[in-house]
Amino acid sequence: MISVGIVGGTGYTGVELLRLLLRHPDVQVNVLTSRTENGRRVDDMFPSLRGHTDLCYSDLNIDELKKCDVVFFATPHGVAMKHAEELLAANTKVVDLAADFRLQDLEQFEKWYGMQHACPDVLKDAVYGLSELNREKIKKAHVIGNPGCYPTTVQLGLAPLFNQAETLVKPESIIIDAKSGVSGAGRKASLGMIYSENADNFKAYGVAGHRHHPEIVEALENISGQKGVFDHILFVPHLVPMIRGMLSTIYVDLTDAGDAVDLQDLYEQFYADELFVDVMPAGSSPETRSVRGANQLRIALYKPQPKKLVVLSVQDNLVKGAAGQAVQNMNLMFGFAEDAGLQGIGLLP
Amino acid sequence: MISVGIVGGTGYTGVELLRLLLRHPDVQVNVLTSRTENGRRVDDMFPSLRGHTDLCYSDLNIDELKKCDVVFFATPHGVAMKHAEELLAANTKVVDLAADFRLQDLEQFEKWYGMQHACPDVLKDAVYGLSELNREKIKKAHVIGNPGCYPTTVQLGLAPLFNQAETLVKPESIIIDAKSGVSGAGRKASLGMIYSENADNFKAYGVAGHRHHPEIVEALENISGQKGVFDHILFVPHLVPMIRGMLSTIYVDLTDAGDAVDLQDLYEQFYADELFVDVMPAGSSPETRSVRGANQLRIALYKPQPKKLVVLSVQDNLVKGAAGQAVQNMNLMFGFAEDAGLQGIGLLP
Amino acid sequence: MISVGIVGGTGYTGVELLRLLLRHPDVQVNVLTSRTENGRRVDDMFPSLRGHTDLCYSDLNIDELKKCDVVFFATPHGVAMKHAEELLAANTKVVDLAADFRLQDLEQFEKWYGMQHACPDVLKDAVYGLSELNREKIKKAHVIGNPGCYPTTVQLGLAPLFNQAETLVKPESIIIDAKSGVSGAGRKASLGMIYSENADNFKAYGVAGHRHHPEIVEALENISGQKGVFDHILFVPHLVPMIRGMLSTIYVDLTDAGDAVDLQDLYEQFYADELFVDVMPAGSSPETRSVRGANQLRIALYKPQPKKLVVLSVQDNLVKGAAGQAVQNMNLMFGFAEDAGLQGIGLLP
Amino acid sequence: MISVGIVGGTGYTGVELLRLLLRHPDVQVNVLTSRTENGRRVDDMFPSLRGHTDLCYSDLNIDELKKCDVVFFATPHGVAMKHAEELLAANTKVVDLAADFRLQDLEQFEKWYGMQHACPDVLKDAVYGLSELNREKIKKAHVIGNPGCYPTTVQLGLAPLFNQAETLVKPESIIIDAKSGVSGAGRKASLGMIYSENADNFKAYGVAGHRHHPEIVEALENISGQKGVFDHILFVPHLVPMIRGMLSTIYVDLTDAGDAVDLQDLYEQFYADELFVDVMPAGSSPETRSVRGANQLRIALYKPQPKKLVVLSVQDNLVKGAAGQAVQNMNLMFGFAEDAGLQGIGLLP
Repeated sequence: MISVGIVGGTGYTGVELLRLLLRHPDVQVNVLTSRTENGRRVDDMFPSLRGHTDLCYSDLNIDELKKCDVVFFATPHGVAMKHAEELLAANTKVVDLAADFRLQDLEQFEKWYGMQHACPDVLKDAVYGLSELNREKIKKAHVIGNPGCYPTTVQLGLAPLFNQAETLVKPESIIIDAKSGVSGAGRKASLGMIYSENADNFKAYGVAGHRHHPEIVEALENISGQKGVFDHILFVPHLVPMIRGMLSTIYVDLTDAGDAVDLQDLYEQFYADELFVDVMPAGSSPETRSVRGANQLRIALYKPQPKKLVVLSVQDNLVKGAAGQAVQNMNLMFGFAEDAGLQGIGLLP
Repeated sequence: MISVGIVGGTGYTGVELLRLLLRHPDVQVNVLTSRTENGRRVDDMFPSLRGHTDLCYSDLNIDELKKCDVVFFATPHGVAMKHAEELLAANTKVVDLAADFRLQDLEQFEKWYGMQHACPDVLKDAVYGLSELNREKIKKAHVIGNPGCYPTTVQLGLAPLFNQAETLVKPESIIIDAKSGVSGAGRKASLGMIYSENADNFKAYGVAGHRHHPEIVEALENISGQKGVFDHILFVPHLVPMIRGMLSTIYVDLTDAGDAVDLQDLYEQFYADELFVDVMPAGSSPETRSVRGANQLRIALYKPQPKKLVVLSVQDNLVKGAAGQAVQNMNLMFGFAEDAGLQGIGLLP
Repeated sequence: MISVGIVGGTGYTGVELLRLLLRHPDVQVNVLTSRTENGRRVDDMFPSLRGHTDLCYSDLNIDELKKCDVVFFATPHGVAMKHAEELLAANTKVVDLAADFRLQDLEQFEKWYGMQHACPDVLKDAVYGLSELNREKIKKAHVIGNPGCYPTTVQLGLAPLFNQAETLVKPESIIIDAKSGVSGAGRKASLGMIYSENADNFKAYGVAGHRHHPEIVEALENISGQKGVFDHILFVPHLVPMIRGMLSTIYVDLTDAGDAVDLQDLYEQFYADELFVDVMPAGSSPETRSVRGANQLRIALYKPQPKKLVVLSVQDNLVKGAAGQAVQNMNLMFGFAEDAGLQGIGLLP
Repeated sequence: MISVGIVGGTGYTGVELLRLLLRHPDVQVNVLTSRTENGRRVDDMFPSLRGHTDLCYSDLNIDELKKCDVVFFATPHGVAMKHAEELLAANTKVVDLAADFRLQDLEQFEKWYGMQHACPDVLKDAVYGLSELNREKIKKAHVIGNPGCYPTTVQLGLAPLFNQAETLVKPESIIIDAKSGVSGAGRKASLGMIYSENADNFKAYGVAGHRHHPEIVEALENISGQKGVFDHILFVPHLVPMIRGMLSTIYVDLTDAGDAVDLQDLYEQFYADELFVDVMPAGSSPETRSVRGANQLRIALYKPQPKKLVVLSVQDNLVKGAAGQAVQNMNLMFGFAEDAGLQGIGLLP
């Protein structure tokens, strides 16, 4: 049984962490911080937790956090990096659900997040927490940069295509048409997020540029071992009038070699031992509701035209795209069963 | 570990039973029937179950069901009563999620369900499965009539008011203005149920009469020990554009004695030991999402005018209003922990 | 062709006024104010208006407003009363869509709106703009207090019951269980209003007391000519996960006389000449979508139990419940056809 | 004033035609047919029409239809082609909202719609009713094949790129990632369409092939004058949990020439005189709600990467994507103002 702290417990990733960790067999949540709700019971704010916890919010107290074995930061970008060094010095591990430890490229970080990095040295040792692709590194990590939601769908959706004997795809051709539920924007009083502005409506956003673009590029470079070839891929996110759920439709031009391979089989082999990545049978159409509340990503493949691959990749943005993957990473870091606390079945309907 | 059968595994209560039972520590689901999907894997129909089961649908085979310790009927009204007798003879217990064993009054059953009852003798021994109110009988029961969703909100919402030293309420004054998500209508190809007919829309239905009215009346008679005084209560259900969730707003005229009592305290005492009934603090407004996917019913009380009580009672219609309560009843019948398999936290947001 | 000004053009009632007035044959909108968007084109903020207007927002300039024949205030409570006197002096009529001119009872106004009334003398001459019930006064009015959305459904839903030869209902028995779409809360950056807090969710709110309660009481007193008998009626509003639409389910105890009357016929006669009030055939269930975008209120009546009347009353909260009724009142004030600019058919589906 | 008939008045395109035509200044709807609702008032089925019409459904009677100046077919594929010849002989014009007169390629028609064409000769003279692109032909047409909803967004989204002095785009690179509200699937009792299967959910469908693919290909061939170069474009439709609305995100590789052109300017010039096509300012993100209920298509352009164009194209699938464009075509055919009956402003929120 380890002791866990959560910094930033009033947002959607914070409450989702609680939903998972309060039922985790190896974990005790002992600290839960909030800048605004100090002293308030968390189940007063989130009645769904009534009967499951007596936790109260506290101000961020670094000494209390140091007593934890691991601290999750479910905070805005820029918070975790202020505290990581001190926590590490106290032998407390850090999982940041924001972007502080995702990008190794400091220039890109500063460009897209508008701030200087507070601890480049810590960043160097941080591990990018895409659990399936970086499992061995995660097991030994002290700091995890938990991936962005969109990048998770893209990496798991494309990873099997790379590091093959032959070059299967034309990297510069990749187009990611992504769609997310509204909870991805967080729990914030924002006019653009109110119900009547989003219900019964659909739109693209961030077409000219989105923070997850550099993260996707860097990640694909790492996966493929190829630098510079992904810079001009297209990534266009859209907002879907639903609470949870994310689907990326990914278009890739295949090489002759890629066209010749049985990609369905390739993917099934690649993910054969993975608990949380599901390659669906040919002809399937993964629905976001099939993973609602579950730490699961589902993939389906289509070749509707010669040398054209379409990958459909779905997840719950708050689970495999955020809190669930963070717990999965914690499980790896502490040697727990990888699916401890993550066995819940998606809520359908 | 008991062996469980589910008759009717393609509807929403069927798949919800699976979601709960597949993660139940004391249960193995061995039989799952469907009239139309014989031989098909259930996770082909409901991909949310992929990775959690290899079950396939089979035709209803009574000999296979007899091997089970308990059989759930997640079928239309009239199916369970055809098979109950034979199952009981084989020492297999029965939990019917339809109405076959809810009403003891055969005339009412025939009037509202348009069919003759097939086994009145079995019905006599059947126990009405409102877990909290009939717990001791349920423990010894062989046949359970699992309550309707609306009646569950009403009974738990009103039970503390009866069987007190004094008469607290005027029974004939009760008005139940109930609201349900669309999944309550089941998984059926029906024009009235399609998305574009229900989204961004609200309406009442069944105002002139609804099958749950006689069930509510009979149940309140049993709870209060008073016959004939509830016949003219009003019950008006409405359809809310949401998938899951049910809220009953119940209006009651208080007697002078009722007006003098601390009803908040009365309710809190009454449900003090209940795991699945939550009396919220005064001033609360229970939201359906606070119980999404959870076997939980939450109550709040208001006295906005003299001698007028307003009870707000919410649940997930598919869980505490159907499959969850059925599992709770099974737990009672077999001596399992009452919350075995039912500890999941509601999905919020 | 009259000249119209709108104060407060960035909220939902403001843009709904524009949607209606820009296609009104007798009206030219010349002034549109906003505290925050001075100089911005309105169709930049609301692209639905592109191609229909070149209007830009301006700061509130009383001299510009004085040039208008009528000014609509689609502002928070307390704005219209600051400017009404000066506008009236310039012979500019005023229609306030907030509460400044709804309640004649100053004490109630101060209690519920937390402010002193700025112009009690103007208030005395103001006419409560429930078009169908106060038509003749509205024709001669200079200041209109446009009714609240809930009170509109209640008044039109109950008006035929009063001022009959006999007493048909027990006034103190009235219970209004009301349900509204989310747009009724306005276009404001509020955490409680964001999509993920409201979608797939249902709740009551304001159970302990809501500003529309005193308005309903005062209005029913005026309609019935009876003072003091409505003080303890119940009014419980609920929030429905839909954008537009409002349904009030109203419960009334009938007297013997009321039980003997053909109420369906009474209602049909009462509203026989009304363009915007539709008494539906017996057995109907009015849906909010049947009035989406239309200046229409539909009523259905049920007597499910002896001496109990249930009235279902639906409207689009932004049209007949706000901007549409405001235009209807303007039409009356200026002698236009009552349905000028209001002939649009509801958007279904 | 012309006389209009509608065949198939119980579906969503039928009732949308009624919504538009009942307020059209130059039209009288005299015939409305239904196979199932003969004799029923249309406003009994669609209460949104109460007060606007006394029309009743009738069986399809060809002699009654012949008395009309124009007949709209809002029917399944294959109905219009059975009656077109006889109507034309009676000098009655035909607008088919299904696919009978969209594809000139009979092989494609038979392949995708699974039926032989009943009147190839009529088809030869039929005009494809994309109003803006075929205006002059439509004015003289007797039979209109009203375009599919998806193809409308694609053609208007791409038309300005073709028939320029230089080749601006690489035609084989076109990828159309399209998203539609659920009403596009029609008003049919289908399990896949029910509320609880679609709400709070997102998925792709028809990835392996969709009927609108050949229509898009043929249309782009006609627009560009180039045969054979569009055969392998990708078209992937998705289902959005909203009632109305459609957004196509279209990806195009630009040639060097295309990269050099000011495409924003090119589009604005191309559509400068169009009432119903709106090229939004650079940087805009068109939302489906901005055209809810309006006969309007909005376009925005992005060049997020070198030589890559992203076109966003939105419409209401039932209006500009179906009934609205059909009325626009009728206006052209009969010399009415092109926007007669089509001036309604979109319903926002």
